[in-house]
Amino acid sequence: MDSKKVNTVKVHKIENLKLEAGGMRPDLPTFRADEVSKHDTNGSFWVTYKHGVYDITKFLPSHPGGEQILNAGGLSVEPFWNVYGNHKTEEVFELLETFRIGNLHDDDVVDHSDEELWAKEPARDARLLVRTRRPFNAETPPQHQIAHFDTPNELFFVRQHMPVPELEASSHKLRISIEQGGRSTSRDFSLEDLDKFPQSQLSAALMCAGNRRSEMNKEVKPAKGVGWSGGAVSNALWSGVYLRDVLLHCGVDVDDVEGKHVIFQGSDVDATGANFSTSIPLAQALAADARVLLATRMNGRALPPDHGRPLRAVVPGAPAVRSVKWLEAVTVSERESPSHWHQKDYRSFNASVDWASADFAGAPPVYGMPVTSAVCEPQNGARAPVRGGRVLVRGYAYSGGGAKVVRVDVSPDGGRTWLAARPTHAAGDSPGRHYAWTLWACEVPVQPGQDEMEVWVKATDSNMNTQPERFAHIWNIRGILGNAYHKVTFKLQH
Amino acid sequence: MDSKKVNTVKVHKIENLKLEAGGMRPDLPTFRADEVSKHDTNGSFWVTYKHGVYDITKFLPSHPGGEQILNAGGLSVEPFWNVYGNHKTEEVFELLETFRIGNLHDDDVVDHSDEELWAKEPARDARLLVRTRRPFNAETPPQHQIAHFDTPNELFFVRQHMPVPELEASSHKLRISIEQGGRSTSRDFSLEDLDKFPQSQLSAALMCAGNRRSEMNKEVKPAKGVGWSGGAVSNALWSGVYLRDVLLHCGVDVDDVEGKHVIFQGSDVDATGANFSTSIPLAQALAADARVLLATRMNGRALPPDHGRPLRAVVPGAPAVRSVKWLEAVTVSERESPSHWHQKDYRSFNASVDWASADFAGAPPVYGMPVTSAVCEPQNGARAPVRGGRVLVRGYAYSGGGAKVVRVDVSPDGGRTWLAARPTHAAGDSPGRHYAWTLWACEVPVQPGQDEMEVWVKATDSNMNTQPERFAHIWNIRGILGNAYHKVTFKLQH
Repeated sequence: MDSKKVNTVKVHKIENLKLEAGGMRPDLPTFRADEVSKHDTNGSFWVTYKHGVYDITKFLPSHPGGEQILNAGGLSVEPFWNVYGNHKTEEVFELLETFRIGNLHDDDVVDHSDEELWAKEPARDARLLVRTRRPFNAETPPQHQIAHFDTPNELFFVRQHMPVPELEASSHKLRISIEQGGRSTSRDFSLEDLDKFPQSQLSAALMCAGNRRSEMNKEVKPAKGVGWSGGAVSNALWSGVYLRDVLLHCGVDVDDVEGKHVIFQGSDVDATGANFSTSIPLAQALAADARVLLATRMNGRALPPDHGRPLRAVVPGAPAVRSVKWLEAVTVSERESPSHWHQKDYRSFNASVDWASADFAGAPPVYGMPVTSAVCEPQNGARAPVRGGRVLVRGYAYSGGGAKVVRVDVSPDGGRTWLAARPTHAAGDSPGRHYAWTLWACEVPVQPGQDEMEVWVKATDSNMNTQPERFAHIWNIRGILGNAYHKVTFKLQH
Repeated sequence: MDSKKVNTVKVHKIENLKLEAGGMRPDLPTFRADEVSKHDTNGSFWVTYKHGVYDITKFLPSHPGGEQILNAGGLSVEPFWNVYGNHKTEEVFELLETFRIGNLHDDDVVDHSDEELWAKEPARDARLLVRTRRPFNAETPPQHQIAHFDTPNELFFVRQHMPVPELEASSHKLRISIEQGGRSTSRDFSLEDLDKFPQSQLSAALMCAGNRRSEMNKEVKPAKGVGWSGGAVSNALWSGVYLRDVLLHCGVDVDDVEGKHVIFQGSDVDATGANFSTSIPLAQALAADARVLLATRMNGRALPPDHGRPLRAVVPGAPAVRSVKWLEAVTVSERESPSHWHQKDYRSFNASVDWASADFAGAPPVYGMPVTSAVCEPQNGARAPVRGGRVLVRGYAYSGGGAKVVRVDVSPDGGRTWLAARPTHAAGDSPGRHYAWTLWACEVPVQPGQDEMEVWVKATDSNMNTQPERFAHIWNIRGILGNAYHKVTFKLQH
């Protein structure tokens, strides 16, 4: 073993990671890269990670990222994991090592440094609560959620799938394509061209479909995805032009929407060079009251790089993933986006569907968001001051699909009694086209001598939908749509 | 006591009523009608019922019908109860007798026969499940709910507040009034006039806000209202013209909707001569995609008398009460309908609000309906055949506000496992403007030797809202919006 060479390959360490994956295993045989590379089919599927060689054939069907994994057959997974940084967790490394069959020959171990890939990431506000660094996923801290109706841009939660692309507003083009009967017509729009359409503003919250996943994981069992608390939602005033106006200008037929889709493509690319892409039903973009925005500004300022500079879609009332950032192409198509982000994620399953039984093609894609709410202050485990026999509880509530929150109820005693919270900040938009969140407060009475309190919160929206009490029956393999009552326990400081 | 005269007054009996209210109480003093009539203020409020005299001063604030009761001060409640027949229940008679203070003098007891008032009620299908006869409230039997996607007119559930008015299509007029800045302009439309607007068809379910109240009553505690099971919902294909078109024709400004309302007035009148009336936000009627219909036909036939002949509103996605029947006036106003049906009912309260604490003016009116579902077959307690190791479970699912049901899940084991039901009948309308119900079926596996099964059903709609597991935390004083999981237990016949 050439110890000098080994030293040039950094065995991957991430924060809090106890296990070092891909280290030498003297008890196992050594393979050359050309031998490994032969195992790239469903029948025999090997990958490497640093010094490790792994036979993951049996794992293929249950890969949460679906068939993306086939790109790594016979190769190192590291370049892929540099992009899909969510693999770099202790859990994944542990799982990987269970498939270990040998060591890669020293001469074939390559240093897949990811520094260049991530070299141009924008600066981020240190107050964001970082969940993963590569890609960058971070929550708005709860105290900042309730401090502003429109979350300041630098504190808006960030959900990336890949490195942030660097785009120039002056040269950026949006390609609008219309596929019809096997033919496709396209037209490019500069931002200046888009500016000629009527300008609109829209107050809308964006919420990751996986917001509050960590609660679901804890109450039921772990689901796949970023371990969000309740901070994967923020609100902003978005400015731009309506996608509907642009599509009608391009000749899309407003009466021919059934079964058609609008595919959004971002400029962010994965390890195979594929652009991020997802879609929504054309009806959702072309409804007479549709508010899907091609946005260039956020809270009165140009979009920050983390939020899609210079152009993004804002699909209000939908999971944030549909609001594609760094938007470079919009395609009206007879099919949904074929991307794995669209086909293999953000779909609706019941609690009994597991990775083996999940029929992604047959499952309804998530195009709306259910009513939800959360306590932002006091936080779990915090000390909360009691004043005048009451403790002040504050938080947010939101419902997708254009519904407006009409009631927020807080229980200090496990649901035996409910107190009506008062809205402190809300948008004036009518139910049916109301896309902002609602901030609320509730002065909850404290019993004399009470030193701890668990509060529950639930919201009711303008369609009179309300939240489920527990996560048990809404758990799903992707851990999305976790809108059970939010339950928080804190100490009381008399 | 003049026994002959007493004999002319029938002491009221209703089906299953054990108690006879208003009978003589020899232990109590006798009052003359002129003495009783002095007690007609909040400070001292007496009423009579047949021979009974009652001091109900303390009951006034908690009267579920609100201030309507003030009309009966110092008088017999019987003429009012002839119209509001929902009072004629054992529970109400028992409550009344707790306020008994004396007997009305024989000479003052009047026979308030209600026969004339109800003489012109239409003939009804004997298969309807009658909940109250006067007014007539009856459910579609569950086996007929699932037998047809569009419920046959004669089996469509019936919800009346008063006797059915008899109206002539040829002479019927709809008065459209627009109130603005203290002035009101009106215009009358014959049905022929309305026919000149573009004709539309709409597949929509109507559901009483109190559907499934009996389950809520049973699981938590009794709420006020008709004791509906799951049969207060049916689906029809409605034909007519869009209210939006008519209002725009009348000059209503589509950009000036905030804070305005559309008041619907029916030709049905109560004991005081007041017409039935309720309202919806103008935005809900004028949204670009609004589907509020002025309907004259139901499943291809003229509206039956029980369903509003010759003209009704159909406000899809809203509680059925907003779809006013025998429609004679539509008023665009800066205020909601002032009627007690609108002000004192169909509002949203949390489970801790009681009649004493209910602030109706401050409570959100119900203009949408939450996602719900029910098992129609097998029924509770029925014997269900097992074929091929499975039992066939069928039912309906529905969501208001234009949302479409995208998933129905059935659990045969108290939520431990969930099976996806398959839709058997559904409309093709896009989410956001989908107003029909969905019929579904599920073949549920039976364990060998299992002789009983409890199934749970829950639905998920296109905004990904789902049902609460229990009624505990959604109970409310009016017993509306009861959309907890439907749970049915039946015997298995191998």
